Amino acid sequence: MTQVPTDTVAGLLAEIADIGTDAGRGGYSRPVFSTAELDLRSWFVDRTAKRGLDVETDRNGLIWAWDAPSGARDGAVVTGSHLDSVPGGGAFDGPLGVASALVAFDLLSERDVSGRPRAIVVFPEEEGSRFGLACLGSQLMTGAVAPDRALALKDIDGTTFADACKEAGLDPARMGADPQALARIDTFVELHVEQGRGLIDLDRPVAVASSILGHGRWRITINGEGNHAGATLMADRRDPMVAAAQVILAVQSLALQTPEARATVGRLTATPGGTNVIASRVDVWLDVRHPDDAVVHALIGQISQAATRVAAEERCTVTVLAESYSPTVDFDPQLRDDLVRVLSNAPVLGTGAGHDAGILKEHVRTAMLFVRNPTGVSHSPHEHVEDVDAEAGAAALADSLEWLITR
Amino acid sequence: MTQVPTDTVAGLLAEIADIGTDAGRGGYSRPVFSTAELDLRSWFVDRTAKRGLDVETDRNGLIWAWDAPSGARDGAVVTGSHLDSVPGGGAFDGPLGVASALVAFDLLSERDVSGRPRAIVVFPEEEGSRFGLACLGSQLMTGAVAPDRALALKDIDGTTFADACKEAGLDPARMGADPQALARIDTFVELHVEQGRGLIDLDRPVAVASSILGHGRWRITINGEGNHAGATLMADRRDPMVAAAQVILAVQSLALQTPEARATVGRLTATPGGTNVIASRVDVWLDVRHPDDAVVHALIGQISQAATRVAAEERCTVTVLAESYSPTVDFDPQLRDDLVRVLSNAPVLGTGAGHDAGILKEHVRTAMLFVRNPTGVSHSPHEHVEDVDAEAGAAALADSLEWLITR
Repeated sequence: MTQVPTDTVAGLLAEIADIGTDAGRGGYSRPVFSTAELDLRSWFVDRTAKRGLDVETDRNGLIWAWDAPSGARDGAVVTGSHLDSVPGGGAFDGPLGVASALVAFDLLSERDVSGRPRAIVVFPEEEGSRFGLACLGSQLMTGAVAPDRALALKDIDGTTFADACKEAGLDPARMGADPQALARIDTFVELHVEQGRGLIDLDRPVAVASSILGHGRWRITINGEGNHAGATLMADRRDPMVAAAQVILAVQSLALQTPEARATVGRLTATPGGTNVIASRVDVWLDVRHPDDAVVHALIGQISQAATRVAAEERCTVTVLAESYSPTVDFDPQLRDDLVRVLSNAPVLGTGAGHDAGILKEHVRTAMLFVRNPTGVSHSPHEHVEDVDAEAGAAALADSLEWLITR
Repeated sequence: MTQVPTDTVAGLLAEIADIGTDAGRGGYSRPVFSTAELDLRSWFVDRTAKRGLDVETDRNGLIWAWDAPSGARDGAVVTGSHLDSVPGGGAFDGPLGVASALVAFDLLSERDVSGRPRAIVVFPEEEGSRFGLACLGSQLMTGAVAPDRALALKDIDGTTFADACKEAGLDPARMGADPQALARIDTFVELHVEQGRGLIDLDRPVAVASSILGHGRWRITINGEGNHAGATLMADRRDPMVAAAQVILAVQSLALQTPEARATVGRLTATPGGTNVIASRVDVWLDVRHPDDAVVHALIGQISQAATRVAAEERCTVTVLAESYSPTVDFDPQLRDDLVRVLSNAPVLGTGAGHDAGILKEHVRTAMLFVRNPTGVSHSPHEHVEDVDAEAGAAALADSLEWLITR
């Protein structure tokens, strides 16, 4: 392996600080296979090639950078994360895990660590911001989503995932479950910015993950009657926007009554969407999470009932469509405890955010590390990581990988 | 004037039935200066030129088709309407007035009517669907809007009205009040599909307008804190979508308590707008109408107070920005009564919808005719006019114009 000077995490992130900035929303919009995300992927390929890693993009669009010859990759220790973002997201959600992996590999080289083969992986469409299904790359690889369903997903402009893949140079016919790629992995470790206040409260820079909340996405479609905003008497209306407002309040109220639940409407589309037009249809996207999957489903039942009731009051109709669901993930408890020890008694935290690690966990031994976010805010330009914590995170990742590689 | 066979209104509308269809929303999306609206403008130029009318596009983008030499256009009788639509609008709102004007001119030719000069006019951006300001063409011509303000308006893609005008072949530097164009007009008559149920209830095909409700548009911006939908506890949120939902319900409730008021939220934008992101900001567009301007302003005051209160409960902040306001318009009562008589005791109806005729009324003698809409629905693909009513409307317009031309 070629020896290169050790970069810092902050230095690597500075290299991509201008890619995919969003002047309108603030922060970054880096949807999968957009120019911005493709630029980030090229940057990753360049930075790993410079380090002498052997880089390949697999048939599902995952990029693998191997520090091992192609014939000797079984039993590998793999780390990595994603480069795509939510619209108007922060600089760290995804890229922190990728940059930290590069720095951790530099540290492993400096320490002359050898043993198991190792690789860095970048997953496409972790956020599901473009095609609506989170962790799409890892779901394809593991077979959690059928390729036919994935390829038919459409973005807001009507482009299918199949067409976006083609444009990015992938062959849709070859996508789908990749048991060979999975079988090579002994252990996967994902480092991620914390998306809450746990490490702030603990006054610690790095934590080991315990679990990911069960979470899902539903689309609630309310149909009413489109009409003229000026010529239609209030009493004659069947306004789906009024029904949608009642649904949003019901979501908040029911979630507040359910301990540990989180339920959010962050996206709403009115059709046709004119100022002087009563909408004919409103789509409301609902994100619900809870550690107990039964509670998630009970809550969705309550929300659906409430939606049907409030829509009927406006003489509107409702359909509720499940778009995705991921049950609660508990990471490998033995590995979690081992890493706590390797990392000098690091604290253990759960998270409400989904990750590719949660998908891989069903197939390979998996762990996650979280790095302190001093604002506690994520999916926002206000998401932050102090440089010193970023370097501490990369060092903790290197220590974890070293322990796994040399076991 | 060249003699051409008399078209029917239905036949003319059939010629443009494929232009600007909207597969997603249904109906038509024909925003001003889009390919669709430019195609409709070309169609109008072709159809008027075929009739031997002298066609010119003025410096504000209004198209005039004159049946009079350029030196003899004072004291003119003018009719016309618009070709742009709301998103997902119907086939008749605008084009019915233009097609009826063409047929009425054919009837006047057949009847050898002479006297005052006559013209058909097409106004750009009547709906305000692209740049947010309704009746933009007539507001520019009359000086009701300053050209600097109009040219700076932006569409949803960030294109300014100035740039869209340039692309359509207009010179932004030459736009603005056009007193010469106004001074030529003795009387303006606009025919329009009815946007309510008045003529259904009266069982009549055509009415004369009495008034247009005062109406305005406001943008309510609610700022909260963008954050992760999974990692943020319900109690820690400052969610502007929840505040927006409360605002929508307050709008409905306050409008229902105010006799004759109509208040609508037909458009809402969440920023950043991701399913797994608590919004940082929500914009709600509000359309309010009432015959008494003082009531409109009182209602806006109540809505603003309610918005501030409900937003504070979510620890969000609110700003309310007036985007446009048009006071109630009473059309010329003498002309209204004259047309009722000319049209064999046609009924008289008010409307809640805005029209270029309402802008021109401040400067020239103005009347409107409404044609029955059997669904009572407008700004929707369900808007409709029966062929027999469309021809009755064109005949009524011809009778009205003949009476005005020959007085």
